[in-house]
Amino acid sequence: MTPKPEIGFIGLGLMGQAMASNLLKAGFEVHVNTRTAASATTILEQGATWHASPASMAANLPAAIIIICVTDSNALQAVTTGEQGLLKQLTPDTLVIDMGTSRFDLTLEIAQQITKIGAHYLDAPVSGGQKGALEANLSVMVGGEASQLARAMPAFQAMAAKITHVGPPGCGQIAKTANQMIVGTTVGIVAEALHLAQQAGADPTHVRDALSGGFADSKILQIHGQRMLDHCFTPGARATTQLKDMQQASLLASQQGISLPLLERSTEQWQAMVDAGQGELDQAGYLAWVEALNGDRPEI
Amino acid sequence: MTPKPEIGFIGLGLMGQAMASNLLKAGFEVHVNTRTAASATTILEQGATWHASPASMAANLPAAIIIICVTDSNALQAVTTGEQGLLKQLTPDTLVIDMGTSRFDLTLEIAQQITKIGAHYLDAPVSGGQKGALEANLSVMVGGEASQLARAMPAFQAMAAKITHVGPPGCGQIAKTANQMIVGTTVGIVAEALHLAQQAGADPTHVRDALSGGFADSKILQIHGQRMLDHCFTPGARATTQLKDMQQASLLASQQGISLPLLERSTEQWQAMVDAGQGELDQAGYLAWVEALNGDRPEI
Repeated sequence: MTPKPEIGFIGLGLMGQAMASNLLKAGFEVHVNTRTAASATTILEQGATWHASPASMAANLPAAIIIICVTDSNALQAVTTGEQGLLKQLTPDTLVIDMGTSRFDLTLEIAQQITKIGAHYLDAPVSGGQKGALEANLSVMVGGEASQLARAMPAFQAMAAKITHVGPPGCGQIAKTANQMIVGTTVGIVAEALHLAQQAGADPTHVRDALSGGFADSKILQIHGQRMLDHCFTPGARATTQLKDMQQASLLASQQGISLPLLERSTEQWQAMVDAGQGELDQAGYLAWVEALNGDRPEI
Repeated sequence: MTPKPEIGFIGLGLMGQAMASNLLKAGFEVHVNTRTAASATTILEQGATWHASPASMAANLPAAIIIICVTDSNALQAVTTGEQGLLKQLTPDTLVIDMGTSRFDLTLEIAQQITKIGAHYLDAPVSGGQKGALEANLSVMVGGEASQLARAMPAFQAMAAKITHVGPPGCGQIAKTANQMIVGTTVGIVAEALHLAQQAGADPTHVRDALSGGFADSKILQIHGQRMLDHCFTPGARATTQLKDMQQASLLASQQGISLPLLERSTEQWQAMVDAGQGELDQAGYLAWVEALNGDRPEI
């Protein structure tokens, strides 16, 4: 068996730790960096190698694959074009992969800077949440060159169950945007429907049973619908993150000069929920926002 | 084998014809009435018996089950409380079942008038569309007494694959309302997402592939999403019907004094689509509305 290549991994949040750990389990030599060094403790105990900055990682792993999985577009800029960012020391043929959810315009800009020096870039955001990350059951949406996707495939397969090549650079982020605007709006309308049903005198559990399997059925009705019935809003994925993704979708629509009335209203509502102090709830906590809006259960 | 009971069936639109035909196939003696007598030709050839009006049907089928499956709340009023309506001749112990999608307030009002004379009422709207009706594969959402549901069960089983007792009178219509507001809004956001993806430069087919199986997945993404990719908007279920159901949901919300911002925006948009002359398209034609709104493919 030939040794598996070295892989750099930047960003060890809940998602990143689980993903890097799966790379180690699959036999990759994993090199890590993250903003808060304490987050690396577990993965270093599992055998990963620490690098002091993205720049020094780039210098020490010439022509390797370096995966980025950071919180938001600001953090992405910091670890790529920032003071100690990858670009300071990036060598040709390195493949940089952004697995976070990042702005489309920024993705194209960073991809251009990286390819200019003879390195490569894939945007490869994931869905499936922390559960999917822990179980190596993520879905990866890839934008970029097919040859680079082929190169990344063994690493993706260690972390994900489904890998889709959506198209040229940026298309992974476009797909993730589509995903998030559908998720955010579906969560919202399911919450509104269950609230209305309850207020009108029906048992929401029976209503959801009646809807299961029909045209109104969805992953959201099943998973988030159950959390709503249980009034269990421990995150999972936070409303603040959903809001960030809705804002990113709205930004993309406005950059494209497109009017999307449902996305617009939905983004406003996630903003209102976060403004009302419910940002730390799970997405399913949108029900608590609908209840608060209508003067119900104000204690939440 | 004991003979199956006689059943009255009022309303022979696309849904009603298929449902009455399945009752005949299951061995029921089916009696029919419908506004346009010509619509009854096929079912009469199959062995059904014609009645000149709902009133005369009620008189001739004492203590039977009489199913109503008409277009809207106005038609429901006509065949129940109208000049030649059921109530003119209704006998005690008759079970009247409304399988159409009707207003909640009207449902409670008619149920009350019917029970007052010692007859019974179930609201039992269906989902599954014409395809579900033809294949006896409907989903029925039932409001009313459990004992009357038990009485209706053999008839329901001849037409449906799933029968859910949601709760007391009106709860079937509440569940259908929840169903329709989720369907209408999910169709809308899927259309917006696919339009945005395409405008931003991604192939919507690949985007939908990437989303399938994840949190954004739904019956709508699968079925209506495919119609959107094919730009095939032959109804199916018409936008005008979806609008009627969204208006009914909005009415219920306002009667309950509840503010539901996504339902509100979604209802406005279905109205705008119908106002723009696209009401005869399938629900999936919402994509054509989003395109028209953004000055794209104005020919649709």
